[in-house]
Amino acid sequence: MNFDIIRTGRAILHVTDLDRSRHFYEALGFIETESDDENIFYRGLEEHNHHSLWLKKKEKPAVEAISYKVTSENDLDELADFYTNKGYDVKWMKKGTQPAVGRTLRVQDVSGLPTEYYAEMKTVERLLQRYDLYKGAKVQRIDHFNCMVADVEKAYDFYTKELGFACSEYTAGEEDRIWAAWLHRKPSVHDVAYMNGKGPRLHHVGFWLKDPMSLIDCCDVLASMGYAPNIERGPGRHGLSNAFFLYLRDPDGHRVELYNGDYLTSDPDFKPIKWDLDDPMRQTFWGHEAPDSWFDEASVVLDVHTGEEIGQNEPTLKKRKPTFVI
Amino acid sequence: MNFDIIRTGRAILHVTDLDRSRHFYEALGFIETESDDENIFYRGLEEHNHHSLWLKKKEKPAVEAISYKVTSENDLDELADFYTNKGYDVKWMKKGTQPAVGRTLRVQDVSGLPTEYYAEMKTVERLLQRYDLYKGAKVQRIDHFNCMVADVEKAYDFYTKELGFACSEYTAGEEDRIWAAWLHRKPSVHDVAYMNGKGPRLHHVGFWLKDPMSLIDCCDVLASMGYAPNIERGPGRHGLSNAFFLYLRDPDGHRVELYNGDYLTSDPDFKPIKWDLDDPMRQTFWGHEAPDSWFDEASVVLDVHTGEEIGQNEPTLKKRKPTFVI
Amino acid sequence: MNFDIIRTGRAILHVTDLDRSRHFYEALGFIETESDDENIFYRGLEEHNHHSLWLKKKEKPAVEAISYKVTSENDLDELADFYTNKGYDVKWMKKGTQPAVGRTLRVQDVSGLPTEYYAEMKTVERLLQRYDLYKGAKVQRIDHFNCMVADVEKAYDFYTKELGFACSEYTAGEEDRIWAAWLHRKPSVHDVAYMNGKGPRLHHVGFWLKDPMSLIDCCDVLASMGYAPNIERGPGRHGLSNAFFLYLRDPDGHRVELYNGDYLTSDPDFKPIKWDLDDPMRQTFWGHEAPDSWFDEASVVLDVHTGEEIGQNEPTLKKRKPTFVI
Amino acid sequence: MNFDIIRTGRAILHVTDLDRSRHFYEALGFIETESDDENIFYRGLEEHNHHSLWLKKKEKPAVEAISYKVTSENDLDELADFYTNKGYDVKWMKKGTQPAVGRTLRVQDVSGLPTEYYAEMKTVERLLQRYDLYKGAKVQRIDHFNCMVADVEKAYDFYTKELGFACSEYTAGEEDRIWAAWLHRKPSVHDVAYMNGKGPRLHHVGFWLKDPMSLIDCCDVLASMGYAPNIERGPGRHGLSNAFFLYLRDPDGHRVELYNGDYLTSDPDFKPIKWDLDDPMRQTFWGHEAPDSWFDEASVVLDVHTGEEIGQNEPTLKKRKPTFVI
Repeated sequence: MNFDIIRTGRAILHVTDLDRSRHFYEALGFIETESDDENIFYRGLEEHNHHSLWLKKKEKPAVEAISYKVTSENDLDELADFYTNKGYDVKWMKKGTQPAVGRTLRVQDVSGLPTEYYAEMKTVERLLQRYDLYKGAKVQRIDHFNCMVADVEKAYDFYTKELGFACSEYTAGEEDRIWAAWLHRKPSVHDVAYMNGKGPRLHHVGFWLKDPMSLIDCCDVLASMGYAPNIERGPGRHGLSNAFFLYLRDPDGHRVELYNGDYLTSDPDFKPIKWDLDDPMRQTFWGHEAPDSWFDEASVVLDVHTGEEIGQNEPTLKKRKPTFVI
Repeated sequence: MNFDIIRTGRAILHVTDLDRSRHFYEALGFIETESDDENIFYRGLEEHNHHSLWLKKKEKPAVEAISYKVTSENDLDELADFYTNKGYDVKWMKKGTQPAVGRTLRVQDVSGLPTEYYAEMKTVERLLQRYDLYKGAKVQRIDHFNCMVADVEKAYDFYTKELGFACSEYTAGEEDRIWAAWLHRKPSVHDVAYMNGKGPRLHHVGFWLKDPMSLIDCCDVLASMGYAPNIERGPGRHGLSNAFFLYLRDPDGHRVELYNGDYLTSDPDFKPIKWDLDDPMRQTFWGHEAPDSWFDEASVVLDVHTGEEIGQNEPTLKKRKPTFVI
Repeated sequence: MNFDIIRTGRAILHVTDLDRSRHFYEALGFIETESDDENIFYRGLEEHNHHSLWLKKKEKPAVEAISYKVTSENDLDELADFYTNKGYDVKWMKKGTQPAVGRTLRVQDVSGLPTEYYAEMKTVERLLQRYDLYKGAKVQRIDHFNCMVADVEKAYDFYTKELGFACSEYTAGEEDRIWAAWLHRKPSVHDVAYMNGKGPRLHHVGFWLKDPMSLIDCCDVLASMGYAPNIERGPGRHGLSNAFFLYLRDPDGHRVELYNGDYLTSDPDFKPIKWDLDDPMRQTFWGHEAPDSWFDEASVVLDVHTGEEIGQNEPTLKKRKPTFVI
Repeated sequence: MNFDIIRTGRAILHVTDLDRSRHFYEALGFIETESDDENIFYRGLEEHNHHSLWLKKKEKPAVEAISYKVTSENDLDELADFYTNKGYDVKWMKKGTQPAVGRTLRVQDVSGLPTEYYAEMKTVERLLQRYDLYKGAKVQRIDHFNCMVADVEKAYDFYTKELGFACSEYTAGEEDRIWAAWLHRKPSVHDVAYMNGKGPRLHHVGFWLKDPMSLIDCCDVLASMGYAPNIERGPGRHGLSNAFFLYLRDPDGHRVELYNGDYLTSDPDFKPIKWDLDDPMRQTFWGHEAPDSWFDEASVVLDVHTGEEIGQNEPTLKKRKPTFVI
């Protein structure tokens, strides 16, 4: 590889009512960097870049792109060459066409997910020590994407062999094939996870919290504001990844994971942890099973060229209620 | 009244395998004051009395008694007179017939629950500042009993009018009748709660924790020891009482609540909080509905005279799945 | 006794700049019930009464009164008789002369502290479950007064023998005499504590927090707002009382304690815990010694009749830097 | 650079009494992987390598080496070439000469610190989800070294320009020269920090905790075991690095930092945060100044060739009490 992907960068989500979305995301403690009638740009408290979540007002909820940050502009050129040589039809968005970000490279990735890369984003004040602004879950930073795809092994192979991602944990299903996988560039559990299901769809965007009490506080704040129905799953502990988690649905149904409890995955001698479907530990470490909605529902994704919704394929492996999936 | 009931004192539970019970209760952080082949006596970390939980090895799981501590020996005599005058058949257990406790007065109370009063219990070392002994949930002290009874209003009337309990919160059901009630002597939310159901049965014994993280820690410890299936409900927040709760089932099926988050109920101008069955706030404040087991299952209670199991009556009010009940 | 004192009720403090005070107390998470150009009335999140802290704008900082709530109006009459018979000159303030409170009885108590009793205070909405309003330390309720007095044993005797207070813990100094004492009416560690020092002065008003993290959060919030210099001592753990504590100085120098970690003191067989001056455990349980300011400085108190500052007497016992005093 | 340093790996400390050390480090929650009469090997709960702290029984307390993990054996050869070409006298320790680790390269680094590199260490069971084994501070993993050196700028230049470390934060002293610097390889605040002082000496080894409550719990556990005098500083929040910290002295005087509250430093557009000596925010974010011992005392280090103590030089810059230094 001649390119260096650093980490999960931002999610671009279409929502239908900005005020309704703002009321929800503010309750979680996101910082609004900038907004207008069509857009809101959010960042977490420790983020020094302009945004990690971009909400665009549109007719229908959808995922416009999931984005990774790369080290330099040259990495973007190398990625463009790489994808073009592989036969992918890439799309450049010049600097200036999107607020606060340099030029970006978009491509429908191996799973059909609208994927974007960028090297440059406007730097803004980091609010890590502005504790007087901490609210709700006190969201610190974006952490990962979790995607439902029809062929997890295809995604796994492409991201580990071609894009330089490492696997921290995975679930083996029938005939020992990979049912779900957690892949990372930064040395945490994941920047992206794939799980077997009707796809491509975005299951959730994960944000990192500073401690477990911020998650409990968030439940209380959401409930007091009437958002109890938006709490879909948790709080609980995942066996897989050890995350202390909470899953929320935003007013358009986009799923957000708030979590705390990662570990360091920097070492080459750290071997991926395998979880078997029949291992009782694969399931939620403690607490309750995921509701069906958590298994069945996910956000539709768009074509990076046409902006149209991408059709979904049935999964390659047998679909089982994945209470063990994060 | 010529007697003074101080607080919830102890529970006497029959269990079928002491070692199995010990393995479970030690994981929660209970302190074993004393034990032999037939008994284990547990106390919480801040308790200066010999025990608040007495496990007796027997053929079948059951509740032998729920006990209240009174101020003096004279209060016991007054209570005996009171009950006798009301036509109840009281039973005295002389000092020396039970370990570590003075004489006790037992009676099958207005709901048929085996109820015990005592003034004297051996004082032992309080371990509040022995943080090196803190484990699991770091249980601090016994807090309350929760009982399923066929006629909540009858229990409510007797305990508030005859025994001097005050009501902190209650749920109003059909025709505005009391469906469930939380009653206290010490100025916390409750020493005893009653809820409409097949009874008399003991729904759970509640123990108080020092902070919310002790509850989360407990989930992790239990799960790592294979006790995840014993976590029946929670963690979650009750709207009613504001408790941050966790419900566990011990190896014999006895239910234990661990909780944190009470408030002070000392004032006469604090009016009982009424929750309507149709108030959305009545339900779990956030998080998930109670599983059916939480609603249907409870511990059988024994006759204070014969030691035989007490038969149960169907509830007076319509039985609804009380997700709003604590 | 023919009267029943329930608990610590409210503090009435004179401050010199209401806006400056408001900026500080709001940061702690107090709820402002009502205010005008001369007054601010604060309550904690679980309090159902109008206020527990009344700030009055005056030329000089001082303590106008420390107040206890009693059960009924009759208790006030009984207390008036009691004090009058003892030769105290009581002062009645009729209902209507102070906002939100019924008639009050004031008296310069045995230590010379301006002490007030009331039975009635306006009931307002309790905000316990309005987590969306939680800020800073999320102050829950008033808990206790800590007073520096010249003769601790005199205060101890009067409050335990005449007013029905119980002692939870005390420090024995020279010749085993009581150097400091923690006394309670509600079954917590204290409603009032006395410590040997130049007095009468009010050392601090203590407020109860829901958990330890609220105290850590408060430090961060205060620091981010520029209030780090107002953090006088802590966070730390007291051996005596087991409180997890933080001492703050408000803009006029009044001292506020925020704490968590009490225990239940309801039982007559709970014997006062004695701490010796030479017991290493008497000191701060962990963490650092109290700064000199904590030892030397306290708020002056006023004459309930004249409103003039009360002169101070040197302490009866030898004055030692009481790092072990709460 | 032709080599890749991953992260802080292990500290090798000489101690005088293994049992006394074991009693202390076990209280903190370290896991003992292996030991004999001369050695104890400790790891944190999330560590999959054999140890991150090696205590060797010796006559005098000292630091034998601070070690970094590199990606491969080839990196060791490249580092050896690099140092040799620079005129450093490297020392190889063959695989098998030290327990559980492959061959290591040692060198007295640019500051005179005994520095070691290794690629291979035995893999052992990771205990991250064995919550039943969590104790004390529940130490998760080694994080960083903090070193006192006579010439911070020399160390800064060598590590950033020659060894590929990035700077997250630094303190500028007289004439804007670097007084202290925090440098990292893994994307956290630091793997190593240097501060101006008599050196070379090791100021402390930093270990990462999972949450703030683990730090508070640790204080309580240590105090209950009689280790309150070993708590040197904290708990508190550093402005610099935002760490919630606790500094302990082990029985031989070696200093250990326990902390929580890092942030992600993966991005090239994250610019080092500069703290000025006269910036009030440079100091402890909240809480109290460091005691003199924290400033003056540090562990002596040994010559990698002779095993003799390395002499110390006076600092290049003016020595000020660095309350702002971590």
